[in-house]
Amino acid sequence: MLTDLYELTMANGYYLENKQDDIGYFDLYYRKTTDEGGYAIFAGLETIIKFIESLKFTDEDIAFLKKKAIFNDGFLDYLKNFKFTGDIYSFKEGSIIFPNEPIMTIRAKLIEAQIIETFLLQTVNHQSLIATKAARIKQAAKGRIVLEMGARRAHGASSSVLGARSAYIAGIDGTSNVLADQIYGVPSGGTMAHSWVQLFDSEYEAFKAYAKHYPNSTTFLVDTYDTLDSGIPNAIKAIKDLLIPMGATNYSIRIDSGDLTYLAKQSRALLDEAGLQNCKIVVSNALDERLINTLLSQGAPIDVFGVGERLITAKSDPVFGSVYKLVAIEKNNEIIPKIKISDNVEKITTPHFKKVYRIYSKDNKAEADLITIYDELIDTNKPLTIFDQHNTWKTKTFTNYTVKELHHTIFKNGEKVYKIPKIKAIREFAFEELNSLWDEVKRFDFPHKYYVDLSKALWDVKQNLINSN
Amino acid sequence: MLTDLYELTMANGYYLENKQDDIGYFDLYYRKTTDEGGYAIFAGLETIIKFIESLKFTDEDIAFLKKKAIFNDGFLDYLKNFKFTGDIYSFKEGSIIFPNEPIMTIRAKLIEAQIIETFLLQTVNHQSLIATKAARIKQAAKGRIVLEMGARRAHGASSSVLGARSAYIAGIDGTSNVLADQIYGVPSGGTMAHSWVQLFDSEYEAFKAYAKHYPNSTTFLVDTYDTLDSGIPNAIKAIKDLLIPMGATNYSIRIDSGDLTYLAKQSRALLDEAGLQNCKIVVSNALDERLINTLLSQGAPIDVFGVGERLITAKSDPVFGSVYKLVAIEKNNEIIPKIKISDNVEKITTPHFKKVYRIYSKDNKAEADLITIYDELIDTNKPLTIFDQHNTWKTKTFTNYTVKELHHTIFKNGEKVYKIPKIKAIREFAFEELNSLWDEVKRFDFPHKYYVDLSKALWDVKQNLINSN
Repeated sequence: MLTDLYELTMANGYYLENKQDDIGYFDLYYRKTTDEGGYAIFAGLETIIKFIESLKFTDEDIAFLKKKAIFNDGFLDYLKNFKFTGDIYSFKEGSIIFPNEPIMTIRAKLIEAQIIETFLLQTVNHQSLIATKAARIKQAAKGRIVLEMGARRAHGASSSVLGARSAYIAGIDGTSNVLADQIYGVPSGGTMAHSWVQLFDSEYEAFKAYAKHYPNSTTFLVDTYDTLDSGIPNAIKAIKDLLIPMGATNYSIRIDSGDLTYLAKQSRALLDEAGLQNCKIVVSNALDERLINTLLSQGAPIDVFGVGERLITAKSDPVFGSVYKLVAIEKNNEIIPKIKISDNVEKITTPHFKKVYRIYSKDNKAEADLITIYDELIDTNKPLTIFDQHNTWKTKTFTNYTVKELHHTIFKNGEKVYKIPKIKAIREFAFEELNSLWDEVKRFDFPHKYYVDLSKALWDVKQNLINSN
Repeated sequence: MLTDLYELTMANGYYLENKQDDIGYFDLYYRKTTDEGGYAIFAGLETIIKFIESLKFTDEDIAFLKKKAIFNDGFLDYLKNFKFTGDIYSFKEGSIIFPNEPIMTIRAKLIEAQIIETFLLQTVNHQSLIATKAARIKQAAKGRIVLEMGARRAHGASSSVLGARSAYIAGIDGTSNVLADQIYGVPSGGTMAHSWVQLFDSEYEAFKAYAKHYPNSTTFLVDTYDTLDSGIPNAIKAIKDLLIPMGATNYSIRIDSGDLTYLAKQSRALLDEAGLQNCKIVVSNALDERLINTLLSQGAPIDVFGVGERLITAKSDPVFGSVYKLVAIEKNNEIIPKIKISDNVEKITTPHFKKVYRIYSKDNKAEADLITIYDELIDTNKPLTIFDQHNTWKTKTFTNYTVKELHHTIFKNGEKVYKIPKIKAIREFAFEELNSLWDEVKRFDFPHKYYVDLSKALWDVKQNLINSN
């Protein structure tokens, strides 16, 4: 029932128009990368697979819809045995994705395709949003550890839990969120809050108590009273009095306020002076890729970044605008491409049932994506020429290249035919994907625009439909 | 299990330190209003009440925690029978709230108070964020209908469903979200997507089919092909050919792209020319309070606003930064105020178990909020003088005034002692609250700053603690 009402009113309409068995092809894609970035990371497929498998209307759902007094009884009966019977083609979770290519294609009865639209969009939009943001933040941290700790600022439970999962897939190292660990296996960790420090008679007592119970991984929050005059000296004392005699070697201090560059540098100096070169410095407080970048460029000696609200809400640009558009219908086993025209050229859809190929250079760097009609093949023994969709005279020819098909069949006739990878495998795959990108595409400011072009055959279909409209 | 791991490691620590029966007072409050606004609306209390009532750790939860190998067995046993046994005082849902006043105060055993922290913050932050944004958008619409239709861009399921509920409480008139209707009774509505129009042989056929099935409330989406040359003429034809002969009187057209002022004006002219003065104009496409304001100031003849991503994600400022701070502990039945100092003056907490009074003028306009120690009373027969916390020489004296206490007891010793109002009552209450505000406080740009002051007694406690630190 997590759907927009118009999906149901349209479904009811298709039913009444005797279109309930008509087949449509819908593409899910996005138009513009968040944060003016050069790439995005696809997340949400696992959630979608589980949703499709469990999709049904309960008796209570149907009773609720009946009370709205706008649905036909025959349609409500039809919903009783409703399940998804179509096909879903999709990029793998963790894939690098670019604007205007079909990340997912749904071939299904119109009613089924409409009813799942809202959930599919919500899931891809949310999870890809956070995965993309997380990849950027991890990129800015240049190999340092990054932890997700935004649960308290997330937009509700699913925002925090699935957000933590998405962030982990895209490279974040762990989360504060226990439920994300329990459900999805995202490694959880955590330390202490200011309240812990306040509840003891002194900061030193609070540190000592914590170290005693968690000697294998202690992080002292040093900014409750005064970071440099009290927090760091007390942490040093607790490490020397308690942790080192216990044989502990894994300890750190956390700074959660103030000027992080200044405090990290001063703290590092105090710790080093005390012979604690191995004590790590963790910082948190409204961090994102921009601030991390600045802190590191100023030489702040930070080992671990704790990232909260600006990751879990993707604060700087919190909407990943995927859309879901009809691109073809099927009549008598023939696929008939459909188009939606718009005054705004970028909003014109690319019609037809399609495939996406990624073209790699011989050193495995992604060079361009090519969208083709579903039955086009690429012979990699021959040179491949692609052209710009708007400036067709601009061409590029590949000779020594390989291609990878990016759509995988997830559901066929309603049956799942795809094995969901383990979360660590998805994460590994996302790393490979990120490695396949040129640094120029990953730059935060004015990234190089990656090519996503149409095959000549597909381009012709689109132009013909535009001209005939 | 929706909590940050550090809440559990701290709880485990309190247990091991024999502090499991120590009582603490925690305030939940926020520091800065989103969008530089003059007020916020509190939402989330109902969700919190249900959470507290159902709070427990299952055997699976405890088995999961045991595997982390950081928790004491005695503590894990303790969690088996864990429930909330403390007190919760709170503003009513739908209340106007201001920075730095305790919206909720939790008096509970430290372990209980810590374990619920993450969920309480997440819930208040998310739902108050959306309620506040919704109130602003409804305010900009100046009495016109506003519909929430952002499910596809929300940050997961709870973001969309509880977001729709929060938006409704604060004044939005309905939602596209069926689940928000089913669970919370937020009225749902909806029309058609572009795909409906594309699936018929012509736009006119598509309109006619829809009108036939939904004559009592038809909205024609007119921008699939060309709004003014095709959409509006076809809508007029469908209304005249089909709806008017059927006796229908409630119909509208929806514009979802292009320049909304221009298209609304041109559409209005075409509809009026056709004698369809009663046909309403609905617009959507990346609307928020700023754009609605501009459209209306340009005289766009719009009757209904459909608001999506910019409401459900609070796009312009998506973080409502509530915090949860220890303000007192209880020892031998004595309340001992606690403070957290910070270099940043605004981050210094206001200690003690407190009450909040709202002071009203005789014409029921809210004039100021006064935070007092929990047992202070206000005698409204006597003049009341409040003073600025930072510039103490700035005072204001009320003579003809009333006061309202804003904290209500929600839980007492773990028992719920508060009846959750029906959603419509919460919404009515939010309207009353909004009406009690001066327009100056509601202004979007540089709103008048509403006074939230401390009583003299409370101010003294705070100063003494600062000085003794």
